Amino acid sequence: MQSQFDFLIHNVQIASMAANSEAYGEIKDACVAIKNGNIEFIGNQHDFDGEVDTYVDGEGQWLLPGFVDCHTHIVYGGDRANEFEMRLNGVSYQTIAQQGGGIKSTVKATREASFESLLASASSRAQALLDEGVMTLEIKSGYGLDLQNEIKMLEVAKQIAKDLPVNVSTTYLGAHALPLEYKDDADGYIDFVCDTVLPKIYELKLADSVDVFCETIGFNTAQCERVFKSAKQFGLNIKAHVEQLSDLKGAKLAASYNAISVDHIEYLEPEDAFALKQSNTVAVLLPGAFYFLKETQKPPVNALRQNSIPMAVATDLNPGSSPIASILTCANMACVLFDLTPEEALKGITINAASALGLNDRGQIQTGMRADLCLWNIAHPAQLIYAVNQHKPVKKWFGGKLV
Amino acid sequence: MQSQFDFLIHNVQIASMAANSEAYGEIKDACVAIKNGNIEFIGNQHDFDGEVDTYVDGEGQWLLPGFVDCHTHIVYGGDRANEFEMRLNGVSYQTIAQQGGGIKSTVKATREASFESLLASASSRAQALLDEGVMTLEIKSGYGLDLQNEIKMLEVAKQIAKDLPVNVSTTYLGAHALPLEYKDDADGYIDFVCDTVLPKIYELKLADSVDVFCETIGFNTAQCERVFKSAKQFGLNIKAHVEQLSDLKGAKLAASYNAISVDHIEYLEPEDAFALKQSNTVAVLLPGAFYFLKETQKPPVNALRQNSIPMAVATDLNPGSSPIASILTCANMACVLFDLTPEEALKGITINAASALGLNDRGQIQTGMRADLCLWNIAHPAQLIYAVNQHKPVKKWFGGKLV
Ligand SMILES: [Zn+2]
Ligand SMILES: [Zn+2]
Repeated sequence: MQSQFDFLIHNVQIASMAANSEAYGEIKDACVAIKNGNIEFIGNQHDFDGEVDTYVDGEGQWLLPGFVDCHTHIVYGGDRANEFEMRLNGVSYQTIAQQGGGIKSTVKATREASFESLLASASSRAQALLDEGVMTLEIKSGYGLDLQNEIKMLEVAKQIAKDLPVNVSTTYLGAHALPLEYKDDADGYIDFVCDTVLPKIYELKLADSVDVFCETIGFNTAQCERVFKSAKQFGLNIKAHVEQLSDLKGAKLAASYNAISVDHIEYLEPEDAFALKQSNTVAVLLPGAFYFLKETQKPPVNALRQNSIPMAVATDLNPGSSPIASILTCANMACVLFDLTPEEALKGITINAASALGLNDRGQIQTGMRADLCLWNIAHPAQLIYAVNQHKPVKKWFGGKLV
Repeated sequence: MQSQFDFLIHNVQIASMAANSEAYGEIKDACVAIKNGNIEFIGNQHDFDGEVDTYVDGEGQWLLPGFVDCHTHIVYGGDRANEFEMRLNGVSYQTIAQQGGGIKSTVKATREASFESLLASASSRAQALLDEGVMTLEIKSGYGLDLQNEIKMLEVAKQIAKDLPVNVSTTYLGAHALPLEYKDDADGYIDFVCDTVLPKIYELKLADSVDVFCETIGFNTAQCERVFKSAKQFGLNIKAHVEQLSDLKGAKLAASYNAISVDHIEYLEPEDAFALKQSNTVAVLLPGAFYFLKETQKPPVNALRQNSIPMAVATDLNPGSSPIASILTCANMACVLFDLTPEEALKGITINAASALGLNDRGQIQTGMRADLCLWNIAHPAQLIYAVNQHKPVKKWFGGKLV
């Protein structure tokens, strides 16, 4: 006869990240029972008397939910180290752009790259994230920009979930940049995105969400709105890069379409934060890009707090503006650069990051959730956010399986 | 009969970091021959015809010197995550200090910690650095402040070199902070440093260098000068924390005592950079502390360049102001925050970092140098500096031994 539970992790301190009366949703002297990959009991050890197949002694260490990196662009060809070097040697952005640099160079390299080479490089980046405890990873397209190469990117993203112990949430980001073949015809390109690519990607079930880059150097609000409308028709989640470099009121627009997240938002006016409330939109902060681009305008964190807008933190891992394959470094930057508290930063890479992907079965340790769990040899969860490159999980369970 | 060479690493691109006509001291289609732990040949493959026991195919990848982290405080008890959290929750520095926080708390925890527990935590931090390719590591005392505990810290540092594949350069930093038992008697404490601790540490051969914290919140120049004089008597190298938060002209003073390095130097006046020239003093930049403390005054990089002062970059790994166990992240910060070029940053963690420790047998790939070598799967050395947490050495040789 089967036991009531497959295994019990006992003798742990738990940072459940779920709302309870304690910071970090802490539960002391706790245990977690897992059955069929899900959490079936969480609580104080003294309150548990179930039947269990296997016992895992946590040795008093801390158990946390697996991390969620809710905004990445890890599938791409080439890299942009040469541009980084040119800029630091005094070459202007303009000159670099004229020489085919910037996102154009990444689009070219991504189109030229084979599925296999994209998979190899993206898997290596994913592995760096997984080594720190990431168990759910969002991956965007947006460097192919034509039908074939956007599909190729999303297929690479899907393959990563088959090869590695991670769940991947895929996002079609056609409205990322204007491809050469639509030069001076952004509206025509948006037609192509909405009428040709999106239906095909929907048919192939390649994307969970649709994203746009709403910016003066990206797409205007009217163009973004057309993409939102199409996404809605197909029942896909809406996400948006907004207010990174200027205030186009993209966040308000996205919220009016019930976007699950608005990302960057350095230039969001504090009084517009309220707009995110009714739509339960998550504010995704990307301090890695802020750091790497030497930005100075910080997101309106106080206004987000006052309006109880959930804040997530992600790596934005990409070759142009955030080549940082470390969710904990980005969480540290969220504190140092954006003044989040360690608890806010940790919520930002767990429970709120899950919400930013529309996933309510992870990002916290709760009955009924996926057993995505990491055991850490730390004295307190704040240590994970305070220290850079000092901690790695000592044990990891992905969907209840030791990995 | 013994072969002429123990082994040959061939089919590599070499970033020798030595001065030649190429950036990064690059040598294409190169090979390196090693005998008895030292580099005995470096050059183009076509120019090599020696006899070799073993061949290692580098598969076209890049070979670089092992990194040198020339400024760390990795031996300490406790941590300061709680202060980080308190500050971000709005508690003032003053309140934290009144509650026994700041460096005082680290001194207390370090004094209370056993040799074994200090060794365990410091080794874990050292390992994180080694994983990125660090092969020479400077470690400072300075959290014991009394005779017994400064000796304990330096013995832990020495033990790390016995346990792990790394060379450790040890530095006695007695003049780091004023211990409680010398409250209001900084001059008396400097007597103790110079007359009691330094002679003993010299006798026990526990330190290669002597360091001071020359700052309004540290020790004044007269006190630092007394330490320099004592260090000189014992023939120990002189290093100095100077001009981090204000300009006390500590760099000029240290240079007048032929200091091998002056460290931090954000507040060094550009016109004082010249003072470092005659003494061959290395300017050690510590962008991790600048980042973590949210400083805004940048070191005078242009003045250092104009005077051809060698610049090194280090982690400053410590619990209060730079809890960053990644030399490559700090090299990235040197570019992003201080505008170094990737080549300058890479020199800063190789050849110039070795100079900052007075070591001329490492930090570059040259005939006669130690065979501290790392093989990297990259397309160009700039990638190591541009990307954060994306690259680890694929092979490492420490003193010619594969580790
Ligand atoms: Zn993005
Ligand atoms: Zn220091």
